[in-house]
Amino acid sequence: MTTASATAGPDLVEATLAADGRRTREALLNHLLEDGLRAELHELVADYPLRPGKGIRPALCLATCRAYGGRNEDALPAAVAIELLHNAFLVHDDICDDARLRRGAEALHVRHGIPRALSAGDALAWAALGPLLDHAAALRPQLAFDLLAEFDHLARRTIEGHALELDWRERDLTGLDFDDYLRLVLGKTCWYSAIHPCRVGALLGSGGRADLDPIARFGFFVGAVLQIRDDVENLTERSDSGKDFGSDIIEGKPTLMLIHLLRTAPRAARDEALRLVGPAGERSGLAREERIEGVIALMEDSGSIDHACAYGDGIAGAALAEFTPAMAGLPETRDKAFLRSLLLHLGDPAIRGR
Amino acid sequence: MTTASATAGPDLVEATLAADGRRTREALLNHLLEDGLRAELHELVADYPLRPGKGIRPALCLATCRAYGGRNEDALPAAVAIELLHNAFLVHDDICDDARLRRGAEALHVRHGIPRALSAGDALAWAALGPLLDHAAALRPQLAFDLLAEFDHLARRTIEGHALELDWRERDLTGLDFDDYLRLVLGKTCWYSAIHPCRVGALLGSGGRADLDPIARFGFFVGAVLQIRDDVENLTERSDSGKDFGSDIIEGKPTLMLIHLLRTAPRAARDEALRLVGPAGERSGLAREERIEGVIALMEDSGSIDHACAYGDGIAGAALAEFTPAMAGLPETRDKAFLRSLLLHLGDPAIRGR
Repeated sequence: MTTASATAGPDLVEATLAADGRRTREALLNHLLEDGLRAELHELVADYPLRPGKGIRPALCLATCRAYGGRNEDALPAAVAIELLHNAFLVHDDICDDARLRRGAEALHVRHGIPRALSAGDALAWAALGPLLDHAAALRPQLAFDLLAEFDHLARRTIEGHALELDWRERDLTGLDFDDYLRLVLGKTCWYSAIHPCRVGALLGSGGRADLDPIARFGFFVGAVLQIRDDVENLTERSDSGKDFGSDIIEGKPTLMLIHLLRTAPRAARDEALRLVGPAGERSGLAREERIEGVIALMEDSGSIDHACAYGDGIAGAALAEFTPAMAGLPETRDKAFLRSLLLHLGDPAIRGR
Repeated sequence: MTTASATAGPDLVEATLAADGRRTREALLNHLLEDGLRAELHELVADYPLRPGKGIRPALCLATCRAYGGRNEDALPAAVAIELLHNAFLVHDDICDDARLRRGAEALHVRHGIPRALSAGDALAWAALGPLLDHAAALRPQLAFDLLAEFDHLARRTIEGHALELDWRERDLTGLDFDDYLRLVLGKTCWYSAIHPCRVGALLGSGGRADLDPIARFGFFVGAVLQIRDDVENLTERSDSGKDFGSDIIEGKPTLMLIHLLRTAPRAARDEALRLVGPAGERSGLAREERIEGVIALMEDSGSIDHACAYGDGIAGAALAEFTPAMAGLPETRDKAFLRSLLLHLGDPAIRGR
């Protein structure tokens, strides 16, 4: 990579996301084809990967690898494995949440029923192991086992985080505070969406020499920002038919906005919110849309959505502060600029629409 | 192990199953405790492992390891991983089948709902990777990657086999023949229940020197017998309240008895069977028990259950024939006698009741 200035504009961010996303998706789909699954199962397994997302995870992994002096080939199998696990989590999460839409089309279990979707999610998760083992066998043993240990940790922490969210949804949401939220997001999102993609990229790009601890702190803040912005979008992007607008309210997801509302709103507003959110909200007798708009109006009255946006910006600042020690001593490449600038530009329309 | 005669009585078989089952269960439960899962998730993850089965998989793995000259420690982490995956498959299968009972108590999703059970199944599967990676890191690299590749293959073939069964249940069962059944059983049962337990035991017991191909053939026949007997028990063990008697008929599972009935019975009996089995049978308006007893009566008229028993005995004979080349050249130890005699005694009351 050629050297470049320390910050990057939205064009570089968009171009890197697009190129790394495409590179990873092509390798992933080739891997699934070579895997020789029966046609019926292959169709289900390839469904979500064929609905591309923003490509943030593979870009974090590959750009970090290159920032540490590695080549794309050094981290591509790991980026493929991360994307496969991401899609596996999505399939199972959609069953657990009874989500209707995923990336603009019906969720897999809505199309094919729970048994087939569950089994496709299992197949996606195990499909991740193949490229990793092939890749690891060509590395020196210590690096190979360090790489496998990263994935072991990634999967286990994510599943634990998801189980924690399921527990919280069924409990009294009024007791949660912002630290609880960050703990939840660390578990269910940060490890697999940012910390491990960056750590694995650094591990492979540096041949095992990178110090991974400061990278974990940077990744934590990046992951938290991704989750907060995702949660805000779920309640603000009314016009985008590809999103399941307001589903977090119907599912009773403990988002920053909901926690803020329940902690700061007057008692009457809090009681009204609790009457509408989550599975218990079905007893209100109101239609889905009425429940969603009702809770959003309460959140707007309490400034909960503005608060979440400001909180997210603060955490983006913390990510930037952690970036410097995390990538200290690395040359000022385009990839380093991309990593430093990603959070600045994620809200830009060209990137949001991806 | 001391040398012993070539065949073993039911006592040795029972004692080996009991000892290896207990050894593996203790190590498994210790591993789950050390894993530090949150109490809520730990409770769900440990639930099925705390309901012991016959312990056939760990005994196959550990006894094969010892038969090849290895110690229990050489294969115990692998046996733990096999049992964890087995339990993970059971949890997800029970969701897919909407099974009510598992080993004498409510299925996990009946107790805790689908989202929590699904997530506990994921956690069980990933819990298998930890002991394997710790163990593999202490082996020479080639053996370590061979071991991990066995587990990769085990999981992927099992999930594919399960997906195949889901496909078949929704199609016309009348087109299936006995070869289809064996192909199905190879996929969904044989790899994880017998072939890989034996292969992994031989790999670790021999330090990578064993020829695994004849062991795979022996394991295939062992696994097929286990599945056939399990299917027969589901339709014959009326008195055992711990079993979900007749559930295979309600779920529309393509068993050997059902395939035989649909291939050999007169047209009227075949039509009557199709009216009662599987999800479509709900439209018959009959109660669950009436549907089960109705189909069993048709199977008895057609000799389908006797046919399945005889077919299973024939395959047990094939397993015995494959045993000789598979374990050729190994000293005549108690473990070799156990492996040779396991299928002979699985039907004995003391072992069936385990």
